Amino acid sequence: MAEEIVHHRTPQFSRIFADVREGLKTLFGTKNDVLVLTSSGTGAMEAAVANLFSPGAKVLIVNGGKFGERWLKISQAFGLEPVELKVEWGKAVKVEAIGRELKLHPDIQAVLLQASETSTTVFHPVREIAGITRNGPLLIVDGVTAVGVLPIAMDEWGIDVLVTGSQKALMLPPGLGFIALSARAWERTAKAKSPRFYFDLRLERKIQQQGTTAFTPAVSLVFGLRAALKMIRAEGLERVYARHERLARATRAAATALGLRLLAPEDPSPAVTGIWLPKGMDGDSLLDYLRERMGITFAEGQDHLEGKIIRISHMGYVGAFDVLVAVGALEMALKKFGLPVKLGQGVAAAEEILMEALHEG
Amino acid sequence: MAEEIVHHRTPQFSRIFADVREGLKTLFGTKNDVLVLTSSGTGAMEAAVANLFSPGAKVLIVNGGKFGERWLKISQAFGLEPVELKVEWGKAVKVEAIGRELKLHPDIQAVLLQASETSTTVFHPVREIAGITRNGPLLIVDGVTAVGVLPIAMDEWGIDVLVTGSQKALMLPPGLGFIALSARAWERTAKAKSPRFYFDLRLERKIQQQGTTAFTPAVSLVFGLRAALKMIRAEGLERVYARHERLARATRAAATALGLRLLAPEDPSPAVTGIWLPKGMDGDSLLDYLRERMGITFAEGQDHLEGKIIRISHMGYVGAFDVLVAVGALEMALKKFGLPVKLGQGVAAAEEILMEALHEG
Repeated sequence: MAEEIVHHRTPQFSRIFADVREGLKTLFGTKNDVLVLTSSGTGAMEAAVANLFSPGAKVLIVNGGKFGERWLKISQAFGLEPVELKVEWGKAVKVEAIGRELKLHPDIQAVLLQASETSTTVFHPVREIAGITRNGPLLIVDGVTAVGVLPIAMDEWGIDVLVTGSQKALMLPPGLGFIALSARAWERTAKAKSPRFYFDLRLERKIQQQGTTAFTPAVSLVFGLRAALKMIRAEGLERVYARHERLARATRAAATALGLRLLAPEDPSPAVTGIWLPKGMDGDSLLDYLRERMGITFAEGQDHLEGKIIRISHMGYVGAFDVLVAVGALEMALKKFGLPVKLGQGVAAAEEILMEALHEG
Repeated sequence: MAEEIVHHRTPQFSRIFADVREGLKTLFGTKNDVLVLTSSGTGAMEAAVANLFSPGAKVLIVNGGKFGERWLKISQAFGLEPVELKVEWGKAVKVEAIGRELKLHPDIQAVLLQASETSTTVFHPVREIAGITRNGPLLIVDGVTAVGVLPIAMDEWGIDVLVTGSQKALMLPPGLGFIALSARAWERTAKAKSPRFYFDLRLERKIQQQGTTAFTPAVSLVFGLRAALKMIRAEGLERVYARHERLARATRAAATALGLRLLAPEDPSPAVTGIWLPKGMDGDSLLDYLRERMGITFAEGQDHLEGKIIRISHMGYVGAFDVLVAVGALEMALKKFGLPVKLGQGVAAAEEILMEALHEG
């Protein structure tokens, strides 16, 4: 990323961009174009809404956390008629509940949800949901903390729109959004009447197939993306997924060994683990302490979970020792804050699982 | 920019962001917020349109090049009713022509134009235009190759919306857009009915005043921006402007000394110089030759100017020797392509002007 910036309308850029485009297709599990947008993941989410729908369109929003709520807000901003399916924070949506809503509202044009809902550390059953939307409404998936973290086979499963960002599994600074559309989603873009220009995917597809972007892209991040995709290729996608799954299990085992409850025990995301703090403990102070005294940043809870949970990320450029550091820091901080934890107990539980990697060939 | 990424909802980020916000206000010449968007400059242009107007709003577009045309396309995409004021490529718009249109269409809500129209290397008389819009329609200025290149005093002149991007005078990789609104422009945002979410400036202003951004920003570029603003502060804004003006004059003098005609002799932008190639010369081949054999990239002409002109940038991280290199390369390439130039003649003319800097204190 520190390389000299090349202009985006040069053969040099196009060579790099072609490489990146191929790598993204593998990551998304699609033969369709994965378009590169200069925006956060939210920009790519807006692109999905603006390019596929007209005002008044009825869509089903799975709202089980802050990012589900974001689909709702974007849909409202664009004048759609969202049907909201509320899901308790920490739980995954039930496939049957989606089936029920689709029967109740046969005019629903699409189902919008997260694969991994980062705010509640839940993984929604995307593959099973795709089973019931395949010949019905479009399935639009925010994969921001899922693509590159766990296997998502867009074409095979039947996902119509898949979105992600640069700063999670792709290990880059934030600044790029990615979006891919199925053939039937592309058909809808011609009919959609919502205004869009910066996020006009028809224009982007045309120009990106020619080896550049419609508007000036974040060139240094595209360079970084090429390097990140190369790293993923070198490790091997299957091993990347297995690593995430192992780090997640180790983190959950550590929390449980420390006597803490998991926020999403039944449907946990392999990207991030949510942990309830003991009743009465001041979560904000705990996180401040961890950051200021130990240099360790955990994510806080949002909205009604603020101060009550912590979230530990283990996706992207993360390995076994990052989990050990996180768990070790947590043990010490909890003890400092008065919880009678036995130091090393969480780490021991994590190590039991992390050692599995040593048995690999 | 190679520093470790910090999360954008941390005190560390907020400290850096506060610094950046102050620096941008100075650069824009405004007391209002300059909002940071993770997008190209075009995203910031779209933000202006989406936040200020409702479908059907009549606006006057000064279309004298590719970027004027972009205002037109964005306005059309959002269902406005643009009145197009066409200007010959290479010429600046006449203030009187704008006055005429405003009289003809008293319901025009805003005038949209470029300060520096990069595609035609023209500088439009923004300050004079502000004189006639001050108590009338809003004045919305794309300052992508103007802010930080030459003095633009947003508040003093009476510009209502000013937009720029990270990759020109701010010397950064692309990926950030910036936008500031006057008090009366902010008033309009409440009434505007165009849909927007990712570019919702009301939300951004609220969150940015709290020290972070509504959505995940391009953190590494924000770090770089702090460094770039520090460099500009160290050189001094007045000296930065004088440098651009001098480099532009040197480039124009060199072209003239080589017997070439300028694309915009009357109203040249200090950011970039457009030069007509001799009749019959294949501009595309010339640019390929410059890039491949000399490692020098000039911009080509667009649309009907393709192959007929070249554009040489001299804004941002550029000094006297960059101009010498550009002119030297041009001389050699022209000779190679059969033009009987006297080698060194362009360079000599440039040096005459560049030496002025040596007389400074």
